[in-house]
Amino acid sequence: MPVCDNAATVISGFNNVPAPVRGVVRDLRIRWALEEIGRDYRMELFDAMTPRSDEYREWQPFAQVPAFDDGEIRMFESGAILLYLGEQDPRLLPIASATRWQAITWLFAGMNSVEPHVLQINAIDIFYVNEAWAAQARPGAVKLAEKKLAVVEKALADRDWLAGPFTIADILMVTVLRCLDHTDMLAAFPALTAYKARAEARPAFRRALTEQLEAYSAPAGE
Amino acid sequence: MPVCDNAATVISGFNNVPAPVRGVVRDLRIRWALEEIGRDYRMELFDAMTPRSDEYREWQPFAQVPAFDDGEIRMFESGAILLYLGEQDPRLLPIASATRWQAITWLFAGMNSVEPHVLQINAIDIFYVNEAWAAQARPGAVKLAEKKLAVVEKALADRDWLAGPFTIADILMVTVLRCLDHTDMLAAFPALTAYKARAEARPAFRRALTEQLEAYSAPAGE
Repeated sequence: MPVCDNAATVISGFNNVPAPVRGVVRDLRIRWALEEIGRDYRMELFDAMTPRSDEYREWQPFAQVPAFDDGEIRMFESGAILLYLGEQDPRLLPIASATRWQAITWLFAGMNSVEPHVLQINAIDIFYVNEAWAAQARPGAVKLAEKKLAVVEKALADRDWLAGPFTIADILMVTVLRCLDHTDMLAAFPALTAYKARAEARPAFRRALTEQLEAYSAPAGE
Repeated sequence: MPVCDNAATVISGFNNVPAPVRGVVRDLRIRWALEEIGRDYRMELFDAMTPRSDEYREWQPFAQVPAFDDGEIRMFESGAILLYLGEQDPRLLPIASATRWQAITWLFAGMNSVEPHVLQINAIDIFYVNEAWAAQARPGAVKLAEKKLAVVEKALADRDWLAGPFTIADILMVTVLRCLDHTDMLAAFPALTAYKARAEARPAFRRALTEQLEAYSAPAGE
């Protein structure tokens, strides 16, 4: 298993998170990428409920996870880390220019054209659920997110993965789609539903998810 | 001037947009990058109020702008296009690994950790302004956006640009900050205010903005 105590590659994550976000915290993206290429990594786990230290903010100034350090580069932002790993292995990001830029285009589309609209629904359903305005804001947010999902649905009509072969764009997009698991929104999108199932059946994804969920059973502070 | 009728590099944009979004439509990012490196480009302008054609959706499936075509690569997503241009010119993205990944990290941070929260305020103030819930949702949205802005403020405490030298990360971040021009939110952030002014004083930015605004005076359909 690529999780290995003395690995040179370090990712930050949490050792406990509330139930609604289990299986969607973004260190999953990096774990998945590393599992796809069989690279060892170790986790630096934090208590999600305790404010991050100033030292951690030097590494990840937004105080979120994941942050990444392989001894060469210290960085943050899951999309940027996926790109960094992609440049190191064509199984994550092909070298041929057209496919490479197709994948990078869809990586950004996932992060900027789809994820914000999906997370807005999460915000309404989880963080703002007790606010009076949340129920009123929801239909508009759903409609907008569905408009974006319809574009991805159409893009997947004639191919298994967004850029042709499996790439970092799929890791990104599938982990975004997973944030809608508490809704039935994907039911209206058969290509997206099949795409997500195809991705979640990959052994690397299964291992990454298992490792992430197992970390949450560790005692707080470990 | 890099805007040139027979240039090989093409960007899509609009020939008319409503007043509140003048000067913030995202083709500005690509115009600015191309002005920084003095590369000729031509615009393919669309009427923002008319639905985009199926042909355009083949190029930009979300039907937004900008899309990009240089004869080699056809792509969309302003962040991805900035990265593509950055790889072609170290004035946009340095080659040295540490600086390069610092810039890419901040490019993603701008797109994913800052922009969604800034655009949520825009959505409330412009698109949802007549919705009863908008005024109730606004304080929470402002508070969250300010939390993100405070991180960028701190990052800029000891440097002029996010990655050290000026890079695509600054083009991204400054064009995000401009979406708050209808508010006084930046007043509380002196480093951000100075950073934005420093960027907007760059001749390449001035030229890009002038060209974008001049396109809006073209007759519809031209």
